[in-house]
Formats: sequence, C-alpha cells, structure tokens
Amino acid sequence: MKTIRQNFAVSFNYDVAFTEGLFNPSNKLFSSQIQVTDNKPLPKVLCVLDEGMLQYHPDLFDRIRRYRDESGSRFQLIGKPVIVPGGEASKNDPSAVQLILDAIEEADIDRHSYLTAIGGGAVIDVAGYAAGIAHRGVRLIRVPTTVLAQNDASVGVKNGVNVYGKKNFLGTFTTPHAVLNDFEFLHTLDMRDWRAGISEAIKVALIKDAVFFSELESNARLYQQRDMEAMKSLIHRCAELHLEHIRTSGDPFEMGSSRPLDFGHWAAHKLEQLTGYSLRHGEAVAIGIAVDSVYSHLAGMLPEEDLERILELFKRCGFDLYVPELEHKLDQPRQKESILHGLEEFREHLGGELTIMLLEKIGKGVNVHEIDTKLYREAVGVLKSFEKEPA
Amino acid sequence: MKTIRQNFAVSFNYDVAFTEGLFNPSNKLFSSQIQVTDNKPLPKVLCVLDEGMLQYHPDLFDRIRRYRDESGSRFQLIGKPVIVPGGEASKNDPSAVQLILDAIEEADIDRHSYLTAIGGGAVIDVAGYAAGIAHRGVRLIRVPTTVLAQNDASVGVKNGVNVYGKKNFLGTFTTPHAVLNDFEFLHTLDMRDWRAGISEAIKVALIKDAVFFSELESNARLYQQRDMEAMKSLIHRCAELHLEHIRTSGDPFEMGSSRPLDFGHWAAHKLEQLTGYSLRHGEAVAIGIAVDSVYSHLAGMLPEEDLERILELFKRCGFDLYVPELEHKLDQPRQKESILHGLEEFREHLGGELTIMLLEKIGKGVNVHEIDTKLYREAVGVLKSFEKEPA
Repeated sequence: MKTIRQNFAVSFNYDVAFTEGLFNPSNKLFSSQIQVTDNKPLPKVLCVLDEGMLQYHPDLFDRIRRYRDESGSRFQLIGKPVIVPGGEASKNDPSAVQLILDAIEEADIDRHSYLTAIGGGAVIDVAGYAAGIAHRGVRLIRVPTTVLAQNDASVGVKNGVNVYGKKNFLGTFTTPHAVLNDFEFLHTLDMRDWRAGISEAIKVALIKDAVFFSELESNARLYQQRDMEAMKSLIHRCAELHLEHIRTSGDPFEMGSSRPLDFGHWAAHKLEQLTGYSLRHGEAVAIGIAVDSVYSHLAGMLPEEDLERILELFKRCGFDLYVPELEHKLDQPRQKESILHGLEEFREHLGGELTIMLLEKIGKGVNVHEIDTKLYREAVGVLKSFEKEPA
Repeated sequence: MKTIRQNFAVSFNYDVAFTEGLFNPSNKLFSSQIQVTDNKPLPKVLCVLDEGMLQYHPDLFDRIRRYRDESGSRFQLIGKPVIVPGGEASKNDPSAVQLILDAIEEADIDRHSYLTAIGGGAVIDVAGYAAGIAHRGVRLIRVPTTVLAQNDASVGVKNGVNVYGKKNFLGTFTTPHAVLNDFEFLHTLDMRDWRAGISEAIKVALIKDAVFFSELESNARLYQQRDMEAMKSLIHRCAELHLEHIRTSGDPFEMGSSRPLDFGHWAAHKLEQLTGYSLRHGEAVAIGIAVDSVYSHLAGMLPEEDLERILELFKRCGFDLYVPELEHKLDQPRQKESILHGLEEFREHLGGELTIMLLEKIGKGVNVHEIDTKLYREAVGVLKSFEKEPA
C-alpha cells in the first residue's frame, strides 16, 4: 500500500518594534498589536510580570490599566496579573509555569487572547513556554525589559524552562505574536544587567559583522557611561542580526546540528550552572566567548591581533573574564563539575554531532566538531593570566 | 527606531507508511526511518508502549529487540520501554507524561534520537506531547495500533493531554518524524475499537468526498465482518484525506478559527467528558456527527435523503447514536453538564469566533458561526426517536 509523503510549509511572521513609554496613553504600539473583531467580545490580555522588574516599576500594572482606559485601546485586561520571580530562579522553579497555566485556565485565555510577558529574558522564557503549550499555543506579546532580553532572548523563536538541572530541558519552538521593546525600562537596570546584554552583541558581531564589532569598540566607553543612544543602536543592530540569522539560516527550528548563534554558549550555560546561577547569563556568555576566542587562536584559526581586540573590548565594557569554576576538574571532562562536561550537555541538547562555533576572524565564525581538551585547558590558563594583567 | 518585520517559512515533511509485520526482521520499513551517520554513535530508540495493546502483544518488546538484532538495523534500543495505560486515562493522568520525560532524561535521548510510540491514539498523543517539549522536540515515530489512531489521530500535527478537566488543554503542534501503520495490530482489536475508527472515515467523507462515502456504504457489511482488505482501504483513504487537508488548507497549525476536520467533534469531546470517558472517542464522534447532521437538515441545509443515508450508514456499521447524556440539562446551555456547554469549550480551545462545521450535502461541509439551541434540542429529539426505530 502506497506510502503517503506529507509535506507542507508554515509561514511565521511577527514585528519586533522599538519604542519609549509603551504604556503612555498616547502610544499606540501596544494596542495596534491587538486584533479586534467587530461585533465580537474584546480580546483578553493577561499579564505576566517579572517581580524583579516590579521593584523598580511598582505601579506598572496600574499604568497598564490606565493605558487600557485612556488610550482608546480595545481589549479586556484580566484584573490580576501573574507575578513570577525574575532571573533564572523562575526557569528553575516548576511552580512558575504552573502559576501561569492556572491563570490562563482561570481567565479562559484562548488561542486568540494575548499573554503579555513583561520582564527579563528568564521570565519571558517561562511565560513563552506556558503560552506555547496552553491550548497548543496562545498568542504571546513579549515586552523585554533588559538589554539582554531586548537584543537576544526575546527576538527569537524559542522558550524553555530548566528541569533535571538541565538548562531548557523543556521548551518549544514557538514564534511570538509581537516583540515590543521599550527602552525606558533600561534606565532602571542596575549596572550588571545594563552591561550583561552587551556580550550578546559582541557575540553576533564576532560571528557575522565586523563593521558592527568596530561600532562596539568605538562606543565601549559610552556604554560604560550609560549612554542611551549608543545602547539603543547596539540593541537594534543586535536584534536585527539575530532576526536575519533566523530568517535566512534555513533552519529556524534547529532540526540540524548547527547553532551558530550559540557561539560561546556551551561554556556559558555550564558556567551558569557551576556558579549556581550567581553569574548573569550575559556575564557567563562573555567568559564563554573569551575562552572560545583564546582557544580559536591557540588552535591556529584566529589571528592574535583579533584575539587582542576581542579581549580588550570585553575589558573596556567592564566584563570579568575569569571565574574559578573554569578550572574545577578541568582535567576530568567526564565529571559533571568540569566545564568540559558542558560540551556533552550542549551536544545532547541539540542532538546529533557535536558542533561548536569558533572564530576564523572578527566577523566570521566557523563550525568545528571536536574540541582538543588539552588545548582548552591551555586557553583557560591564558585567560586567567590575561585577567591578572593590570587594565 | 524602525520596526523589524520578521517572516520566514518552515518546511515540514514526513512519511505515512502502511505495512504488515513492522517488526519482522525482513521488514525494512522501521530501520529505514532511522538516520545513521558514519563514524558516529548509533542513534537511540526509546519505546513508549500502550499497556492495553501489550495485553494482546505481550512479547512486543522482545520482538523489537529481535528485530534490532536480526534485521541488520543500526540503532541502540534503550533496554527499558516506558509503559503507559491505554485510552483516555493516559491523557488524564499527568504522571504518564512525567514517566516518559523521566525516561528521556535518564536515557539521554536527544533531538536526533527517536521516541517510538506504539499504541492507540491517546498513548500516541501523550508520547507526542512529551516528545514535543523535551529538548524543544525529539523525533517521534508513531506506530498507531487502532483503526482510529491509524486513520486519524496519528496522521496529523497535534498532540495533547487533558488538564483542568479540559481535553487537550496542554499540547503542541509538532509534526512526527514518521507514521508507520502496521495492519497486523488490527487483528487483535476488540469489536468496539475495530468499529470506533470508522466514524472518522465517515466524517472526512461527509465533508470532503462523496465518492468515498459511497465506498463506505458499499463496504459497511464487510467492516462488520471484519474484512481486512476493506478496512485497509478505508484507513488508507481516510489518512490520505486528512493529510491532504492539512497540506492544502493553508492553516496546518490552526492559527485561524476554522477547523473543518473537527466536524461533529464539539459534541463528541463534550460527550466523552460527560460519560466519564466510557465512550470511545470514535463512538462519541459518531453521535456528534449524527446530531450535527440532523441539525444541518433541520436548519434547512442538508437534504433529507442525505441525512437518511448518513444515519443508515452509522447503523449498518453498528454504532449507537444516542446516549442519555445528550439530554442532560439540554435547556441550560450555560451549565457544564449540558452538551451545549461544549460549544463554548470548543470555541475557547480554538479561540476567536465560534466556528462549527455543518453539512450542505454528502461530500460538502459548510462553516457556521451560530447554533440555534432550540433547533439543537429538536435535533437531539429526532436522533432519540431514530435510535428507537427497529433496525
């Protein structure tokens, strides 16, 4: 009996918009994303708010309510937002997803309603996962409030939570309905969160865009001075490069084994875990990129002057490039406490062949399928001595 | 700052194959679906088995092991399969998903490994959900073992589990890696399971293919006699029509409000719930189709002779078309115990506007956006008296 070969394509599209004062009644961006149908009940909006962010914006939900009332918006705002802890804690805690699902059920949120997640990358990941699985997907509006969430975590097609101590063990590939970046949230970030997101911009510049890397070098001092215009430009270009990659890579849902945007991330994910998440994701990424750049140089791929520019840029932005966890059981790659065990965890998550992005030069990444652990130990040593040099 | 409009398409493709003796060592179908890469560890296969099916095939896992050893197949078979209860019980019980996720984690199943689910539609739904969320999606091979699973539940792009008493409250749109239908499993089905799947074939014939409906009429007696050739033909054509719809509808992931393949299903889902899942899904679908067909006629859409052919076919196949739950609180549509509450539950699950498929004639469905509850009560009455007529 004849085999039936099924094949079809699905189109996905969404806006990634940039604004200031998203919930000022005169700002039409948010309400323009809500589809209203004549003669039908107004669509529902349920908010998921990041507890960490709320400390700096305690009146946020009141402002959203006022926005609904005064902007001429047409949606039903569910009266009780869901509040979840910020940072990796919410991804580690199964009750955060449960809380959001309970609220979705209680408010009768359906596939044409809107879950609006406002916060850092972790909260958006958790809310995105709940939105991805409830009713097989309710609409998700992401309102990222940190540099890293705006230029990296929120632009893409993934969500996830950590289970069994494994980062993003559960998650889905689900596109958002819209991503609305409000730069005003950046004013209240502490210095660590302001800085942390810069490493994702350095990452994408390194593998894709030497011109952007030069812009980052030119502006390094401005980032340190919290210059908002420089940061806005960084975020926009970084988001643009991520979106372009997803759009043109030919594998947006990662069915293959390659994941170039995860340059530096295999070590970063492992370092977050080894430090008990005391490192911010972006801080860990900075170290991950630094050590993989040193390794790229030692392996004869990356010219020395390029390596120097990379390490220099991280230093000028204020990143620390060494933590003692880099050296824990460094000679025992099969021990879970070793950074090198992160290679196997990374491979396992994606499946298939180990594929690690390294650098050929600034602006050009290259995939390799093996890491020489002896050389890697050497790279850690180089980074450690670099870190000890006077700035 | 300029809004970035993201858009891309993702291609999905998979084979739906038909065979007998899938795990006979001479049968190459299963092993042909496993991608082996030279010089790499063999891919892993973890089995999820339906406890109900295992009663009739207690040696199935031994046979799979023998298949692996004797067929020249190249895969690592994980030594301990996951066994979950068959039927809707597994979709209602959160521990079934947990069991599968635990096994995925323990066996280090990655995105390039294979979860192989063997059983009825419910078990395949549960396993599919676990496969859809673990590592954001591991490969799923569906081996459906009932008529309904082979001709309907397994061919599509959905999975799901029931939470908060709501059918498929959690789930994802995820395509399988392959669907392998082994007709040999049908020999051991009891008469209810053999029959139940026929209603999905009647459904898709009614909304899409009058010629297929005539084939079903001609063969009704053969299905009752458990004629395998007739049933194989029914399953193949039914699967084909479902796949064709998914491929050509323009909305495989149901972003809109229309869901034509769910003709008769709003009432069916509610009846399953109201009868405490004592009705098989296919049995409930038969009643749902029957009452919606009577309603279509009373609403002036469906000619009387078409209605008579429909009811006649169900009777000749041996379906019961009436259960007392149809009349519970029939005049109180807002009560959860009323079949009519199923309309709102159906709308809520899909979101947006209520969209119900009805019939214009045999072979042609039509979407409506309102149901006249008075007329619906009348339809239930008509069905009740029809059921009382001597066959």
